[in-house]
Amino acid sequence: MEVLILGAAGMVGQKLLNKLIIKKSINGREIKKLKLFDIVKAPFPDDVNFEVEIITGDISKKEISEKLVSSKPEIIFHLAAIVSGQAEEEFDLGWNINTKGSWGLFESIRELGDDYKPRLVFTSSIAVFGAPFPEKIPDDFFTTPLTSYGAQKAISELLLADYSRKGMVDGISIRLPTICVRPGEPNLAASGFFSGIIREPLNGIEARLPVSTSVRHWHASPRSAAGFLLHAAEIDTKKLNNRINLSMPGLSATVEEQIEALRKVAGEETVKLIKHEIDPKIDNIVQGWARDLDTTRAMELGFKAENNFEEIIKVYIEDDLNK
Amino acid sequence: MEVLILGAAGMVGQKLLNKLIIKKSINGREIKKLKLFDIVKAPFPDDVNFEVEIITGDISKKEISEKLVSSKPEIIFHLAAIVSGQAEEEFDLGWNINTKGSWGLFESIRELGDDYKPRLVFTSSIAVFGAPFPEKIPDDFFTTPLTSYGAQKAISELLLADYSRKGMVDGISIRLPTICVRPGEPNLAASGFFSGIIREPLNGIEARLPVSTSVRHWHASPRSAAGFLLHAAEIDTKKLNNRINLSMPGLSATVEEQIEALRKVAGEETVKLIKHEIDPKIDNIVQGWARDLDTTRAMELGFKAENNFEEIIKVYIEDDLNK
Repeated sequence: MEVLILGAAGMVGQKLLNKLIIKKSINGREIKKLKLFDIVKAPFPDDVNFEVEIITGDISKKEISEKLVSSKPEIIFHLAAIVSGQAEEEFDLGWNINTKGSWGLFESIRELGDDYKPRLVFTSSIAVFGAPFPEKIPDDFFTTPLTSYGAQKAISELLLADYSRKGMVDGISIRLPTICVRPGEPNLAASGFFSGIIREPLNGIEARLPVSTSVRHWHASPRSAAGFLLHAAEIDTKKLNNRINLSMPGLSATVEEQIEALRKVAGEETVKLIKHEIDPKIDNIVQGWARDLDTTRAMELGFKAENNFEEIIKVYIEDDLNK
Repeated sequence: MEVLILGAAGMVGQKLLNKLIIKKSINGREIKKLKLFDIVKAPFPDDVNFEVEIITGDISKKEISEKLVSSKPEIIFHLAAIVSGQAEEEFDLGWNINTKGSWGLFESIRELGDDYKPRLVFTSSIAVFGAPFPEKIPDDFFTTPLTSYGAQKAISELLLADYSRKGMVDGISIRLPTICVRPGEPNLAASGFFSGIIREPLNGIEARLPVSTSVRHWHASPRSAAGFLLHAAEIDTKKLNNRINLSMPGLSATVEEQIEALRKVAGEETVKLIKHEIDPKIDNIVQGWARDLDTTRAMELGFKAENNFEEIIKVYIEDDLNK
């Protein structure tokens, strides 16, 4: 079986890749080839025992999406995206990659005809929701995004749902919580500080906190994110009854609770490395984000995440610290 | 002031045009020019005392939307669409006109720069909702369309909301109930029979009822629809708080209640002209449609519709029968 990952060079793409390398199969079907796409060359370990093809390019170009699906991969993970902060600044770039890119991919699949209907797992985001919302956002809450990124994800969801309803692809969209703790360097996402205030102190570096400590947000670890993706590839999509957009389980925590968990896991000296300097632009974006979700539907379908923030910190220490 | 109507040859477009001709102004500003666009030449009365420009073309072509907005009309009514039944059959056509057409229009406005921010009233539809839903669909219910038409409208709403949030246009989307009683010939909409079973008998012609009489649906008259559009052009959009998509008020009635109202207004002999022959394809589409809505938000913003089905029939008799 061939598996295609779009956005394979990204952090979650890499976590998924490593999970697939260990698991070697999806739904009992052996992975024979991995096709890894991103704007830059996706890294992969030397000791992989199946074929790997690396493709780079711009997903908003139709010839790229055609090339990606021409070999008819059975499973497609679509994680390629411009992150929220950048999509808000660069309007055209965000729409081109995050919406036209997805649409072009779905079209390229459709053009291959009726005998090709791959499972397509699309990574959406809780940024499809915009404030004000109820304390817990239910599964049937409307999408009123307050960022272009959120609008681009919500539109890709609707496109995938219609192409799936029409039998052109076997799609499922999973709305990821903010992934925390992200390993490595900060990225351009407005949500970056949620990881930074844990990651930097654990690495002995100062971290900047640009929002109030009372900000409540919705988190899951990179390990959980890779787990969601794999589960979405294996699930029986008939159970979704045409409602293919699912909010993934996560953990609702305030920044204060994050800091408290860090104190318990790593001590007071580590916490002192967090410097509080409000950035009104980031603060404004984050005020419009989801704080807590009711994800009954996803949990009933077998998706799982962490239960407290200490767990999330421990996953980072186990999987990523000093690696 | 210049006013542009896209979809001006359509039934609702014509009702709006006639209303504007009588009213002569919007928000107290005199209409000096009307630009009427459609795929065919939009008819207009001879005795209009302002300038009228007729433009025909394909709204999915960028040069057309550029031409339409080049004169910077202050108010734009966007009603142009492929109807639900046709959009379901002709996948590419539906997406091209209903989504790419809208998107191209918004882009053409944006390209004219910061000093041009017209009020844009977009006609959306309750087809953005898909079954199963609660007895009354609340204003914050999610959009899970079960037709391509519904998906195309939901996506246009999200696009307009983001372009509006970014200050590129001053948009409002109104989700029209099924318009009933439509005057004139039947169109390709799957909802056509809701009007047909009233209109044809009132004109002494047999009508076909392709669904069960227990089917409940959501209606407003063409007169109300024109009223919604005008009110949407005059409203203070700041009151919408970035949530620019509004379900319009309407009347929830079963087909049986429609028939009963027809009996009261026009008598038993008229009702006998309705022939009941189930069409599984239409029945299947209609099962996925909204039956009743809670439109508190729109009503608080001053939008008004009919209170019972006899009123709807009387509006047809007054405005359209024998004309």
